[in-house]
Amino acid sequence: MNILVVNAGSTSLKCRLYSMPDETELARGSVERIGGTDAELSYAHGGKQLLGKERREIRTHADAAQTVTELLCSHKMGALKRLDEIDGIGFKTIQAGEKNGTVPLSGDVIEAMERYAPLAPAHNPPYLACIRFCKKLLPGTPLVGVFEPGFHTEIPEYARIFGAPYDWYADHGVAKYGYHGATFRYVTTRLAALGFTRKRIIACHLGGSSSVCAIKDGRSIDVSMNFTPQSGLIQSGRTGDIDPFVLPFIMERKGIGLDAALKELSSNGGLKGISGVSADMRDIQAAAAAGNRRARLAIDKFVYDVVRYRVILCPARRRRCDRFFRRYRV
Amino acid sequence: MNILVVNAGSTSLKCRLYSMPDETELARGSVERIGGTDAELSYAHGGKQLLGKERREIRTHADAAQTVTELLCSHKMGALKRLDEIDGIGFKTIQAGEKNGTVPLSGDVIEAMERYAPLAPAHNPPYLACIRFCKKLLPGTPLVGVFEPGFHTEIPEYARIFGAPYDWYADHGVAKYGYHGATFRYVTTRLAALGFTRKRIIACHLGGSSSVCAIKDGRSIDVSMNFTPQSGLIQSGRTGDIDPFVLPFIMERKGIGLDAALKELSSNGGLKGISGVSADMRDIQAAAAAGNRRARLAIDKFVYDVVRYRVILCPARRRRCDRFFRRYRV
Repeated sequence: MNILVVNAGSTSLKCRLYSMPDETELARGSVERIGGTDAELSYAHGGKQLLGKERREIRTHADAAQTVTELLCSHKMGALKRLDEIDGIGFKTIQAGEKNGTVPLSGDVIEAMERYAPLAPAHNPPYLACIRFCKKLLPGTPLVGVFEPGFHTEIPEYARIFGAPYDWYADHGVAKYGYHGATFRYVTTRLAALGFTRKRIIACHLGGSSSVCAIKDGRSIDVSMNFTPQSGLIQSGRTGDIDPFVLPFIMERKGIGLDAALKELSSNGGLKGISGVSADMRDIQAAAAAGNRRARLAIDKFVYDVVRYRVILCPARRRRCDRFFRRYRV
Repeated sequence: MNILVVNAGSTSLKCRLYSMPDETELARGSVERIGGTDAELSYAHGGKQLLGKERREIRTHADAAQTVTELLCSHKMGALKRLDEIDGIGFKTIQAGEKNGTVPLSGDVIEAMERYAPLAPAHNPPYLACIRFCKKLLPGTPLVGVFEPGFHTEIPEYARIFGAPYDWYADHGVAKYGYHGATFRYVTTRLAALGFTRKRIIACHLGGSSSVCAIKDGRSIDVSMNFTPQSGLIQSGRTGDIDPFVLPFIMERKGIGLDAALKELSSNGGLKGISGVSADMRDIQAAAAAGNRRARLAIDKFVYDVVRYRVILCPARRRRCDRFFRRYRV
């Protein structure tokens, strides 16, 4: 059975084709920098890298999906003869509110993804574009979404609810969802498979997007990311935790609207905003080493956030956090 | 020397007259439920409660200040013969941005209080009304503000900054201010006076408005309240921490504007919002004891927040927090 797995980012698309149930990788294709004439197309099949960051004009996620699926059954490079040899497609989807966990991508789930797109503006729209493309391309093939918050549904209610009017929670689903569920589930099952028998795990997903999760007896009991992926730890270009009453203040001071203020927070905040250098930690570390004060501050803030959340979730690790913090600062 | 101390809330005014430097209380007056015909006036002088929650029509904070100051030098109940026996007036003020700590209430400080009123909408306007009344009543008398965030100015920069665009911080002062400075300073100096020599203190200010502060060597090094008093721990009627990207979502879902959404958060959120019973913990505890599920949830959320922040700030106290949590839930 051949399963295609699709991971869409705001400007990227990554696909892998697996033979199941033995999990053999048959092919992988990716497009980065979607949106212009200099998109980067990569493709590997049979253990060989056949295309490596080749420049192409790829303007949309649907175009990217088309390019990769064409490669999968191309005469020269294809892993398949015909596209209908794909038995199912899985999407590492982000947010559809009450439609959560691992679910077939039926009409009502797609409708929920549209409705909850404001929570994951960088992710839901590209996934919707890819899903629509695949539905058209392979009308009979099952499509499945693995929604990130699915791992966090057992967090106790007192840790999920905000101090907001109750109807925001009961009628509109405003609560802590948590993200990076695929990572945290993988870490949990992998540790168990490796024979680690600890009942309590603190898992850190640190990268362009970062969160920390407390796992007890294999289940998420708390997580740093909240209603949207723009919360918790500071992110590379997105804000992380911030007092929402900043918004009316800054709107008045800068003479901007709510949309513009939120856009600044979600695209020009985070490590990029503080450092003024880059959203990439490698660039920030190089700048800090060269004496850039704001780059140093961005690193300190990142470490503070990680340690702060690790300490909330697992105080016994405080000393290790302290050492981590000291080492990082040197 | 006679010093009048003024503490204004959104619907209350509390005043005490002290003889300094020996700190003898000469009189105290208060008005609660300012705004209508059923305001409650209380007044004590010479250790005797002369008025106890007497109903009066008192519509504004200026009217309340006038009522109390008239009592202070009234023929029958006055502690003073004339108002100019007051040598100075101190105000427990909240927020004036860069004008911080203990400062004379000059024109530029009052202007800053107006500018930063959106951060403390329940507090800055009543203080401004009282200050203006006192300036008019006693033009030559020094007025001094003791701004709450003054105690928190030495929090390290990495713990003060948000992951927002840098100009929000550098040009507009968007950062962690912290509040309840008067409480935390008092706790610190009082513990020292009592001979407690611990270098690290976790102080909890729990009430209608709540925050937790980490104090090291007498100085605040971190605090749960952030840019505004609507952050950190859940408050009685105000939200505490919340993901700001909730706002565009709820505005669209409920068809309301930003001002209405923020007003709901700051007046109808917190323990009041979750419990649906009251903003007062005593009412909520009674309802929980009678089996009210939402009242129970509000208490759990409050305890979760207190423990969460205490653990961030002082993980060695984790076990005690756990015990506190268990006891509270029973």
